[in-house]
Amino acid sequence: MAMNVSEKLINSHLISGKMKAGEEIGLKIDQTLTQDATGTMVMLELEAMDLDRAKTEASAQYVDHNIIQEDNKNPDDHLFLQSAARRFGLYYSRPGNGVSHPVHMQRLAEPGKTLLGSDSHTCANGCMGMLAMGAGGIDVAMAIAGEPFFVKMPKIWGIRLTGELPEWVSAKDVILELLRRHDVKGGVGRIIEYYGPGLKHLSAMDRHVIANMGAELGATATVFPSDKEVRRYLKSQQREDAWVEILADEGATYDIDEEINLAEIEPMIAKPSSPGNVVPVKNLEGEPIYQSYVGSSANPGYRDFAIAAEIVKGKQISKGISFDINPSSRQMLTDLVKESHIASLLSSGARLHQAGCNGCIGMGQAPATGRNSLRTTPRNFPGRSGTREDSVFLCSPETAAASALTGKITDPRSLEMKYPKVREITQPSIDVDLLEKPLPVEEAKQVTLEKGPNIASIPDMSPLPDRLEIPVLLKMGDNISTDEILAGGSRVLPYRSNLPEISKFSFEIIDDTYYDRAMKIREEGGHALIGGYNYGQGSSREHAALAPRYLGLRVVIAKDFARIHWQNLVNFGVLPLTFRDEKDYDKLEKGDLIQLDDLRKSIQTGTIVKANVQGKQAIQLEHALSDRQIDMMLKGGLINWIKARQVNDKEEQLW
Amino acid sequence: MAMNVSEKLINSHLISGKMKAGEEIGLKIDQTLTQDATGTMVMLELEAMDLDRAKTEASAQYVDHNIIQEDNKNPDDHLFLQSAARRFGLYYSRPGNGVSHPVHMQRLAEPGKTLLGSDSHTCANGCMGMLAMGAGGIDVAMAIAGEPFFVKMPKIWGIRLTGELPEWVSAKDVILELLRRHDVKGGVGRIIEYYGPGLKHLSAMDRHVIANMGAELGATATVFPSDKEVRRYLKSQQREDAWVEILADEGATYDIDEEINLAEIEPMIAKPSSPGNVVPVKNLEGEPIYQSYVGSSANPGYRDFAIAAEIVKGKQISKGISFDINPSSRQMLTDLVKESHIASLLSSGARLHQAGCNGCIGMGQAPATGRNSLRTTPRNFPGRSGTREDSVFLCSPETAAASALTGKITDPRSLEMKYPKVREITQPSIDVDLLEKPLPVEEAKQVTLEKGPNIASIPDMSPLPDRLEIPVLLKMGDNISTDEILAGGSRVLPYRSNLPEISKFSFEIIDDTYYDRAMKIREEGGHALIGGYNYGQGSSREHAALAPRYLGLRVVIAKDFARIHWQNLVNFGVLPLTFRDEKDYDKLEKGDLIQLDDLRKSIQTGTIVKANVQGKQAIQLEHALSDRQIDMMLKGGLINWIKARQVNDKEEQLW
Repeated sequence: MAMNVSEKLINSHLISGKMKAGEEIGLKIDQTLTQDATGTMVMLELEAMDLDRAKTEASAQYVDHNIIQEDNKNPDDHLFLQSAARRFGLYYSRPGNGVSHPVHMQRLAEPGKTLLGSDSHTCANGCMGMLAMGAGGIDVAMAIAGEPFFVKMPKIWGIRLTGELPEWVSAKDVILELLRRHDVKGGVGRIIEYYGPGLKHLSAMDRHVIANMGAELGATATVFPSDKEVRRYLKSQQREDAWVEILADEGATYDIDEEINLAEIEPMIAKPSSPGNVVPVKNLEGEPIYQSYVGSSANPGYRDFAIAAEIVKGKQISKGISFDINPSSRQMLTDLVKESHIASLLSSGARLHQAGCNGCIGMGQAPATGRNSLRTTPRNFPGRSGTREDSVFLCSPETAAASALTGKITDPRSLEMKYPKVREITQPSIDVDLLEKPLPVEEAKQVTLEKGPNIASIPDMSPLPDRLEIPVLLKMGDNISTDEILAGGSRVLPYRSNLPEISKFSFEIIDDTYYDRAMKIREEGGHALIGGYNYGQGSSREHAALAPRYLGLRVVIAKDFARIHWQNLVNFGVLPLTFRDEKDYDKLEKGDLIQLDDLRKSIQTGTIVKANVQGKQAIQLEHALSDRQIDMMLKGGLINWIKARQVNDKEEQLW
Repeated sequence: MAMNVSEKLINSHLISGKMKAGEEIGLKIDQTLTQDATGTMVMLELEAMDLDRAKTEASAQYVDHNIIQEDNKNPDDHLFLQSAARRFGLYYSRPGNGVSHPVHMQRLAEPGKTLLGSDSHTCANGCMGMLAMGAGGIDVAMAIAGEPFFVKMPKIWGIRLTGELPEWVSAKDVILELLRRHDVKGGVGRIIEYYGPGLKHLSAMDRHVIANMGAELGATATVFPSDKEVRRYLKSQQREDAWVEILADEGATYDIDEEINLAEIEPMIAKPSSPGNVVPVKNLEGEPIYQSYVGSSANPGYRDFAIAAEIVKGKQISKGISFDINPSSRQMLTDLVKESHIASLLSSGARLHQAGCNGCIGMGQAPATGRNSLRTTPRNFPGRSGTREDSVFLCSPETAAASALTGKITDPRSLEMKYPKVREITQPSIDVDLLEKPLPVEEAKQVTLEKGPNIASIPDMSPLPDRLEIPVLLKMGDNISTDEILAGGSRVLPYRSNLPEISKFSFEIIDDTYYDRAMKIREEGGHALIGGYNYGQGSSREHAALAPRYLGLRVVIAKDFARIHWQNLVNFGVLPLTFRDEKDYDKLEKGDLIQLDDLRKSIQTGTIVKANVQGKQAIQLEHALSDRQIDMMLKGGLINWIKARQVNDKEEQLW
C-alpha cells in the first residue's frame, strides 16, 4: 500500500490498534520533551511511579518557558529539574539555552522518530519529518516510563503546496492563511501533512513556523517530509548522520485534500482574541498600535529576527512604541549578535529580552490597558498576554517590523524599500555539548532529587463513585481555552508544583466566584461544568484538568472537546461527556442539579449515560472512552491506575 | 578661602543657611532624575501641586528600574510617565534605554551642577564633578517645582588616592575596601570627596562605580573633581561643550582626612547580608556558589562587562552555575554587541537579560533557596534579591567571572591566565536623541495625563495631634533597611501608585502580623515604632515612610536615623525622635503604651519631647527638626504644607 509520510511514521510505531481514523491507537514514543512550566509535575509523577531510568531513546528536560525569577521558586525548580534529569537519565538544558522547540530541533530532533512533549507546540518539530505531538504531562511521564501513547487515529489532511511566496510574505502568513480558512478547530482529529512542489522554497525553520501553529488549528500533529532541506539543516547543525529520507510513496493518498498556492498568499493578521480571527493585513492598515513584538517559538528562526533587523536598520521606530525582541534560543541569539542584527535592532529603539518564553505566555511585556499589541507569537486568547483586557494581533515578523516603524498596523509591502534579502546562516554557532547528557545508570542512581519548599506531592484522588448528584457551577460557550480554565503567566505558573495554591486561579477570567463556590461543596460530592464546542483548546497544560479536579470537578459536559484537554480530563479522573442531542445544551443552566445513577455500570456497559436534571427532562449524554480509559476512569485516573498495576506487578513477582 | 570641590558646588548653589557642618542648608537644584519605581508618585505629587512647568535646567524621567511587565500595571505606568514628562516639560527615557544613572551620565550630567534624584544611587553621578544626591520622591517633586533642597551641611571627607590599581583589581574593590574600613554608616552626615594622584588612573566610569556605592556608606554625596578624564568622557559622548574644570583650590582642606593607596588594594567581597560585611576574596576561596551575576548600575561600565567577557572567552562556565548578565543601558549593550563581548559571554553559557534594573532590586534572577549568589550589584540586604532566605555576596566583575568558571568563590588572581587588557571604547554608539526632549510650553499645556486603573491619588493626611497615646508595634535592632520596612521587588513595586495595596507589604520581613495589628488601631490614634542605630538605611523609596504612615505610624523612636529615610518620615508627617539617653532603648518593649502630651507645643519650643510609658519611668526624647520642618510636621507633612502655602499665595493675590 502506498503510504503518505504520516502513515509511515504511525505504521512504524504502532503498538496497538489499527490505522483507521477514529480508532484508538497505541504508539511507541522515541523521544520526549518537557519544559519547566509542565515538567516539575512530570518529574514528580516519575518519582511517584518509582521510575528507575527513562526508557525512551532521548528525553530532554528544558527550562526557559518560565523566565520570571522574582523569588526562590523558579531557581529551585531549575535545581529540581536538573537533579531529576540526572536521576532519570534525561538530557538537561540549562537556563539561557532557550525555548524547548527550537533547541530540540537543533540538538535532538531526528527524522522518522516520534516525539511527545508536555507542551502543545511540540508539534513544531513535525518540520523535521517526525511525528511530534503535544500531550498532558502525565502522558509524557508514561512515555518516559516506556508506555505507549494512546490517541485516536487521526485523519490525514494532505495540503499540497505550489508556487513560491512573494516578497514581504513569509511562513507565518501561510499558517495564518490556513487558520483563516479553517479556524481554530479546523484541524481537530487530523494530522496536517504538507507536500508538493512549493516545499522546496521553505527552509526547515520556515516549516517549523508552520508546524508550530498547527496547534492553533487543533491538529493532532503537523508532518513534513524529511527531504534535502531537512538534510541541509541537520548538516548545518553538525548532525547530518541523523538524516534519513522520508517521503510519501508514489500514489499515496490523503483523507482530506487541500491546496495552497504560495504565490497567492499576502500578509495576514489574526485579530483579537483568537488565532482563527484572520484577515489580510491591508484590511486593518492604519490602526494605531502601542507594541510590536518579534520572536517567541512561533517565529524562532534566525531569518525571523534578521528580516526584522534589516527592515528597521538605520531607522528609528515610532515614538511611544514598545518594540520588543524575544530571542528563542541561545544559539540563534549568538548568531544574530555576530551578524550585527541585534545591534541594528537595539539602535532602532528595540528592547532586547532574554532567550525563552516571554510575552507569548504572559511572562513579560504585557501590553498597556486598552492598547493594541502586534505580535509574532502563536496565540492571542483573552488575557494570555498578562493584561486582562488585552488587544493582541498575530502577524509575521515583516508586518511587526513595518508597523513598529510607522506606529500603526502596516502592510509591509507598503514600505518604500526593497525587500531585504536575508541569507540563512550556513555555519551557525553550534555547541554540541549545549545539553547536559544523561548520566550513566550507576551514577544516576546515586542522585537525590533536590526539592525546594514550593514542590509538593499530588494529593490522592478518589475513584469514580457510582452515583453523583452535583450542581453545574459554570455554563460556558464555544472555544473555551485552557488559558481561560487556568491561566499561564507569571502569577500562576510559579505554583505549578503546588496544587492547592494553583487551583485558586481556576476559571478566574470567566467567573471569579468559581473557586469559592467549588471549595464550598468540594467535600459534598463536587460539581459539574458545561461547555460548548472545542472545549479546552490551546495550551496542553494538565493543570487545567488537575486544578479543577482538585476543587471537586467530576464531570464536564460539552458539545465537543479539544483533544489534549479531553485526554487530560480522563487522565485525572474527570468524566468528559458530550450531548447525544446537541440541543440539550440549551436546556442546561448554571445552578442545575445533575444526577447520574449507576454511573460505573453505565460507562462499562455502553457509551450512553443518562442524566436526570432536577426540575427538567432527563437528557442523554455520551462518553468516548476506550476500555483502557474506562478502567482508568473507574479507578479515579491514571495515577491510581498505574499504582494499582504496579501493586499487581509486585504481587505477581511474589507468587 | 581655599575651597575643596564639594564646598565649591555647595557654595555656588547655596540659597539659605551657612556652610557649617550640621546646619540646615537650602540648595538650588539644577537637575533631577526620577525613575519608574518612584517616579509615578512624584508625578502624582506634581499634579497635586498643580505645577505648570518644571523649573529646573533639566529633569529626566527614566523607566527600566521596574522591568517585570507581567500585566498592565507596568506598561500603564510607562504611558503615564511619558504623558507626565510631556505635560511638565521633562525629558523622557523610553523603555529599553536602561538604568537612570548611567543614561543620565551619558546624556545629561554636567560638571558644576546639582542633581537630585528619587533613587538612593543618584550619588553615582558625583563622578562627573556634580553634587548628586538621592532623596525621597517628594523632595524631588519640590525641586522640580523650583523649591530648594534642604539638607544638613555635611562634613567633607577627603579621601586622597595614591598609586595605581594592580591587575585583577578594579573600582568595585576600592569602594568595598572603604566599606570594610567604615561599614554602612561610616559616611552618614558626610560628603566623600576623592582627590589625589591616584585619580588619573580611574576613568569616569570607574569613578561612577565608586560614587554609586557611596550610598552604601550612608554618605550624603560622593564628589569627584571635573578633570581631564571627565572632559574625555564628555567628548566621547559628543558633549564636550558641557565640560568645565572644577578642581579643589590649592590649600583646600577637609573636615576628615583619609588616604587609600590603590596599589595595595586586593579583590574584596561583601558577605551576606550587608554591604559593610567586607573581607578579602581570598578569605572565602572555595565556597561553592550557585549564581554569578555581572552588571547592574553598580558596575554599569563597558569595561565591567568586557572584562568579564574576556575572562570567560572561549571557555565554559561551571555546570550548574547561573551566569547572569544584566546590561545597564542600551548604549553599553549595543557597544558590547558590536565588540563581540556579548557573543563571548553567551558562548560561555551566560544568560543575557534586558537592559535595566534586574537582580539588584529583586526584579529577576532571584537565587535558589540556600544557595550562594555572587553579584556585582550594590546591596545584599536580607531578602532584597527576592529570595527570602538569600545568601548574596557583592564583588567585582573580575571576581564574578572567575568564580563562574570555577563554580566557587575565586580570587581572580588565582586564574591561570594573563589579565585581559580591556580597551575603553573611544567611539561609543551615541544616539543624541536617545531621550525624548521636553515639549514646548504651549504644546505641553495641551497634554493630558494618561492614568491607568492602578494609579490613584494620595489620601489626605491629618495634622499632628497635640496628644498621642499609642502602642509600640515593633521594636527593631540596628541597621534596619528600607528594604525591610517595605520591600522592593516585583511583588511590591507594581503597587507603588496604590497606597492601600502597597502598605500591606510593610515590615512583612520583620513581622508579618504588623499590617493587621496596625490596621486594627489605625483609626484609634495609630502607633509607634522603635529602632536602633542607622534606622532606615538603604533605598530612598519614600513608600517606606508613606505606607506605614498610611497604616497609622505617628512616631519612630530610634538611636539614630539614615538621612534620606529620616527626611521621608518628616515629609509625610511621621515624627522621628532619638533617645536623649541611648540606654532608654533597652527600657522600651514591643507593646508598651507611649503617651506624648503637649506634643505640638513641645516640638515648637524646644528639642526635647517627654514620653510617659505606661507602667515604666518617663523617658526623654529629642527631635532634630528645623523651624521649616516643625511647621511641616504640625500641618501633617509636606503635601499639607505646600497646599496651605498655595492657598496663602492665592489669597495674597486676591488682596
